[in-house]
Amino acid sequence: MYTRFGLKAGLQFSAEIPDEARPAVENLVREANTVLFRKGVPKDADEREVGRIAGWQAEGNRLLLDLESGTYTRVHDALFRFRKQIAPTLGKFRLGLRVIEVLDYTVEMKGEFPEGLRIPALPFIKESSLAGDTLRMRLDLTAADLENKVPDRIVRLVEEKIQAAGYGGKAEHWDLVFESGKKPRTFEGDPTEEMIRRGWVRHALSRGQWIHGPQSTQLFRAFEKIVMKEIIEPLGFTEMIFPKLVPWEVWKKSGHAKGVYPEIYYVCTPKTRDPAYWEDIGDYFKVTGEVWVDEIRKRIDGPIGGLCYAQCPSFWPFIQGETLANDCLPARIFDRSGTSHRYESGGIHGIERVDEFHRIEILWLGTPEQTVEIADRLHEAYVRVFEDILELEWRCARVTPWFMAQEGMIETEDSCGCGCGSRIGTTDYEAYLPYSESWLEFQNVSINGDKYPSGFNVKIQSGAECWSGCSGIGLERWTAAFLAQKGLDCENWPECVAEIIGEPKELFRFL
Amino acid sequence: MYTRFGLKAGLQFSAEIPDEARPAVENLVREANTVLFRKGVPKDADEREVGRIAGWQAEGNRLLLDLESGTYTRVHDALFRFRKQIAPTLGKFRLGLRVIEVLDYTVEMKGEFPEGLRIPALPFIKESSLAGDTLRMRLDLTAADLENKVPDRIVRLVEEKIQAAGYGGKAEHWDLVFESGKKPRTFEGDPTEEMIRRGWVRHALSRGQWIHGPQSTQLFRAFEKIVMKEIIEPLGFTEMIFPKLVPWEVWKKSGHAKGVYPEIYYVCTPKTRDPAYWEDIGDYFKVTGEVWVDEIRKRIDGPIGGLCYAQCPSFWPFIQGETLANDCLPARIFDRSGTSHRYESGGIHGIERVDEFHRIEILWLGTPEQTVEIADRLHEAYVRVFEDILELEWRCARVTPWFMAQEGMIETEDSCGCGCGSRIGTTDYEAYLPYSESWLEFQNVSINGDKYPSGFNVKIQSGAECWSGCSGIGLERWTAAFLAQKGLDCENWPECVAEIIGEPKELFRFL
Repeated sequence: MYTRFGLKAGLQFSAEIPDEARPAVENLVREANTVLFRKGVPKDADEREVGRIAGWQAEGNRLLLDLESGTYTRVHDALFRFRKQIAPTLGKFRLGLRVIEVLDYTVEMKGEFPEGLRIPALPFIKESSLAGDTLRMRLDLTAADLENKVPDRIVRLVEEKIQAAGYGGKAEHWDLVFESGKKPRTFEGDPTEEMIRRGWVRHALSRGQWIHGPQSTQLFRAFEKIVMKEIIEPLGFTEMIFPKLVPWEVWKKSGHAKGVYPEIYYVCTPKTRDPAYWEDIGDYFKVTGEVWVDEIRKRIDGPIGGLCYAQCPSFWPFIQGETLANDCLPARIFDRSGTSHRYESGGIHGIERVDEFHRIEILWLGTPEQTVEIADRLHEAYVRVFEDILELEWRCARVTPWFMAQEGMIETEDSCGCGCGSRIGTTDYEAYLPYSESWLEFQNVSINGDKYPSGFNVKIQSGAECWSGCSGIGLERWTAAFLAQKGLDCENWPECVAEIIGEPKELFRFL
Repeated sequence: MYTRFGLKAGLQFSAEIPDEARPAVENLVREANTVLFRKGVPKDADEREVGRIAGWQAEGNRLLLDLESGTYTRVHDALFRFRKQIAPTLGKFRLGLRVIEVLDYTVEMKGEFPEGLRIPALPFIKESSLAGDTLRMRLDLTAADLENKVPDRIVRLVEEKIQAAGYGGKAEHWDLVFESGKKPRTFEGDPTEEMIRRGWVRHALSRGQWIHGPQSTQLFRAFEKIVMKEIIEPLGFTEMIFPKLVPWEVWKKSGHAKGVYPEIYYVCTPKTRDPAYWEDIGDYFKVTGEVWVDEIRKRIDGPIGGLCYAQCPSFWPFIQGETLANDCLPARIFDRSGTSHRYESGGIHGIERVDEFHRIEILWLGTPEQTVEIADRLHEAYVRVFEDILELEWRCARVTPWFMAQEGMIETEDSCGCGCGSRIGTTDYEAYLPYSESWLEFQNVSINGDKYPSGFNVKIQSGAECWSGCSGIGLERWTAAFLAQKGLDCENWPECVAEIIGEPKELFRFL
């Protein structure tokens, strides 16, 4: 990709620029083009790639600049370097720099554009046209936008989209790691249908949401006990409580703000707590029996964020901005304090694919070596549980890392020099569902590299890179997998599991 | 209060009303005024109170009616009774009734209006004026609104507001039931400040929200263990899992839709899950580093409801519409599966008054006698825990029932004939906070009468009235109360409690 930038800017001074200042400006422009803008540019770079002031004009109290560049000392960088010089130079003529106006900003990208590429549609992009091998964009920016490097980010975004369009046709990465082999099957039914029939669960009043009766809850708690005894305690994880409402501030740092939008339940707050402000909303319900949703919409702020989606991001503000002592690492934590929510696709089915679910989230951090080591020990513990205790028919596979999918990323950005780099990624654990002859992902283990520590600015005393990993145990999914394979009659369950679960307890009898 | 209604309505027929039909209409009007509208009216009622057709006119294919009434056979009821008669009568002239138009609807209420009374401001109320002892309202209604009894509900609403304005100045109901007396004090500090200092908790990134480190979580789990061992197991409560996102449908039935609006966190859903629809929102973040909230607002639906506020309403759809067998009662349940959220006032302080909190919700139902009996046993168990185990300085008091406060109600609507009626209400449990010399409500026990069973249409086989109760154990509040009185050093904790909590575990060390 060959990229060129063009910028017309106006520097407004406190008074008219006098003719006698012109030679000083002319000198400074020459100096900038030959020395200042070359700083940091590789010696062998094509000189057309380097930013330059192609023309200038003094008009009243404005100095108009016409800048152009390739990818070295891009026009906006050039502009700010030049500002630093021009301010003291014209200061000698008793002129103060007041305002920087961005009069015009163009970007031209030449290269191969795959079919179906979507040019970004953003308020800053005033015009764009793609013809053959050339994409032209005219941007509408302020000086602050230039300082925030908005043009660079727009170019990177286009490059990402080109790459994504290229990947579009390719299947997701999936490499088998382990397969349990076929296990004896005692049940062929749809576990949710059978649970409903027996009154173990009942659909709640929102989308993809269930009320779990005692029997279903017994299964959840039994699995939790097994996880505690076989995994969390022997591996030394300690319980914490992570918040479940996630403000944007967290997702901006975790990276979810890049692409989680289609799947989240958004949260809004009342504009005020003043009961008088809300009185007519309650009155409307009292009079009509309906909730006045259209009017409520006008009286709420936000969205301020959303409901818990990935569970571990909310932990990180606990250590945000800190440098961790070597001897407290690796840190091993888990949270099981509430629900997660995803706005799922049409594929909602039974308790396997739901909008509201319960997950034990395991999280650890330390050096890359420590992080990988814990992931390996965790995997071994899971193998033991699925093979020897639950006796499941299952498999696991290395897949496209979850954060790439959730954040609309194309490639991991992590690069590390320690040899662990190839371990960054996600392993999905899948169980076979005889009734639908398909595989259900019921949990995962991920090594996330420095993604979170770098997003939340967490460091290690020794200076080693800080990495983290996480593993989400979905209780609905474990239950669905177990019941789909073993059925709902406890005499067909592995004995030690049946003992932990206990006889399913029926609390209600309906006429 | 003396109330009069006036209604001008037009009945549109399929063709012009012929002159020869007029005597039949005249007869029917006379019949209606003297017989039809008198049905069900007490013999001794003032005849000006009863609905009548004061005048009528045939105009083209419309029959125009002018109705007036007091509170017997109100004008809209009179209209619908008349419709039933006029349709077959004019049918004989080959006229079919097509449409009912509401041309004008007025309500006049005469009586004493307290100062500061807020007249309802609703879209149906086109005009209203209060002068001296007379409130006049002109309503804008459809025939469907009349069938839904909107005018009756508006009148009832005004009556409620008059009553509320009368109560306005009065303090809330508060009667002391039990007081532990002073206990030895070992700590005078603000527990949250000390927890922060020691790294037990850290404020999260949203309002009134904390991340609990291992030490704070140990306390939560220890209290949970005590509750399980001393209360939940001996009293025979069984765990279920209640949903934590609450759609309007639940709050409409639980009554919260009457007045919970100022304090809830609202939930909205994406208009679509199509990633292309959301691509520019993610792009905006990638380019600016900010979340495009204004644009997201336009792309979400709802609010569809809110986050868990009272915890028990979400249970009820599990048994909604059912008749319960006598022998499964009383039913005793609890839920501890997630967070509750309240948009709290400026009074947010430490972990005592938060927006996001953790509660064990205990719920039971049965006959009134069973319900009261369980509440009494629960109270005894709490007394034992606070006196003998936690050794707290605490008290409890009968207070204005929570659902009256949460739903903006003035008086309980429940009336029961069994003698238990006087027991409907809430008992608050308060602990003394030495550092602020104030009392903190840390849990409650409520007998809710038939509120939920009637809202969710739940019945008992025997025909006995169905009642329910609930008790919310706030883990943040228990922790705040305990630490405020005993301090953070475990050597000052009651021995058996210290043993359950264990040595506070420090997981992180920061440089």
